[in-house]
Amino acid sequence: MTYCVAMLLDTGLVFLSDSRTSAGVDQINTFRKTSVFQSPGERVLVLQGAGNLAITQAVGSVLREQIDSRDGRDTLMTCVNMFEAARLVGDALREVHRRDARSLKEFAVEFNASLILGGQIRGEPPRLFSIYAAGNFIEATPETTYFQVGESKYGKPIIDRVIRRSSSLKEATKCALVSMDSTIRSNLSVGLPLDLVIVRRDQLTVARHMSIDEDNEYFRGIRTRWSDALREAFTELPDPEWLGDRPLVSVPRSSDVKV
Amino acid sequence: MTYCVAMLLDTGLVFLSDSRTSAGVDQINTFRKTSVFQSPGERVLVLQGAGNLAITQAVGSVLREQIDSRDGRDTLMTCVNMFEAARLVGDALREVHRRDARSLKEFAVEFNASLILGGQIRGEPPRLFSIYAAGNFIEATPETTYFQVGESKYGKPIIDRVIRRSSSLKEATKCALVSMDSTIRSNLSVGLPLDLVIVRRDQLTVARHMSIDEDNEYFRGIRTRWSDALREAFTELPDPEWLGDRPLVSVPRSSDVKV
Repeated sequence: MTYCVAMLLDTGLVFLSDSRTSAGVDQINTFRKTSVFQSPGERVLVLQGAGNLAITQAVGSVLREQIDSRDGRDTLMTCVNMFEAARLVGDALREVHRRDARSLKEFAVEFNASLILGGQIRGEPPRLFSIYAAGNFIEATPETTYFQVGESKYGKPIIDRVIRRSSSLKEATKCALVSMDSTIRSNLSVGLPLDLVIVRRDQLTVARHMSIDEDNEYFRGIRTRWSDALREAFTELPDPEWLGDRPLVSVPRSSDVKV
Repeated sequence: MTYCVAMLLDTGLVFLSDSRTSAGVDQINTFRKTSVFQSPGERVLVLQGAGNLAITQAVGSVLREQIDSRDGRDTLMTCVNMFEAARLVGDALREVHRRDARSLKEFAVEFNASLILGGQIRGEPPRLFSIYAAGNFIEATPETTYFQVGESKYGKPIIDRVIRRSSSLKEATKCALVSMDSTIRSNLSVGLPLDLVIVRRDQLTVARHMSIDEDNEYFRGIRTRWSDALREAFTELPDPEWLGDRPLVSVPRSSDVKV
């Protein structure tokens, strides 16, 4: 499994993904489960994928083939806006579905893929999309601060509690790392190293694209401190003293089965 | 959906379940999604269910019918130990499956049910089981502190961080409530009121069985304080100052697509 999260903020975008699968390929412009497509000063697009790796990789390959073929048709590097870019990703998914879905079904393998596409094309604000296996998609509205794909539930509560559109890129990065830490601790299928991509609004280039592994001092510090802080906060919560130490049955006896 | 969690500690058991479904019935010995079967001084068993409510309710009804029929066959009130009790629950699930599964399949409804059974029968220590839809089950070993069914992922990280077998019943109750709070905040299908059951080791009766709703002062306090403490702990984590404020591309330019 995978965990990817992308946040859309007033000041830009933050993308974080894990890389537990060892099927990572070193193709051009693929950085594990995160791919960056950019033309500095003109556009920057980031694509994250979760689900069947063969499917999400095939989608990436189809999109890159389109760019390489230069046959005049729109690609992620030429489309006029992010909505058209999301359509191209959805279409690529449908192409892979047409080619592979029947064979997968014969082996009882679900056509399982979820993608996140975010970025900015000159003339537009940054935009963020969540693309489903059927190739349809939703876009983040002002009320939506983030999308997740993969093992998303463990790391969701902390994002819900602290992130707003007005959060800074630093806060969002910190929160994404805490969210990832909670996921890694509770689910063995999600693991280091992490891929972090930061896009600043109107810079139209990747501000930061880095790999975070167990030697990363900042992430190590965050993990330890967060763990300590949570335990301390938990300890400081008032105990349920009302439980008392003696038996106390507070429901009518008639609701119990007795023999 | 539902969220149920049960914890097995050195000093007893803690059970907490939500009750968002409005299909709750007021049958004898059913307290929403949690059922208590007890013979004070001799045995106390607690059953929690998640999944298709018609299935988990049917399982409860089958088990109660067995008790009422007094036909000499083992029931939850007469079986010699908790292992046999778990088998009885598994068998009841299989009976419901035999009766209903084909009809459900015709309506494309999955036979979806997960149960937790915990408690103590005189002569044994407290034991805890997680029972699958197929009627098979696993038992908590000394390394296992808890089982969850239903929407379990949101509330798992905090339990993993703070609960051990040696935790007190009060700590476990507090943790179960915090875990439930995280789940309720992130998943609309889980909601108040909650059913809390506490079983103290060797008391062989329910120590506490109560309903917690939005008016419960302790739970309200826990929710507010935990939320504040988390936000404060998050704020106090060091920001990723290394992100800087200017663009910094730290991966080889060759890994980007450029046109």
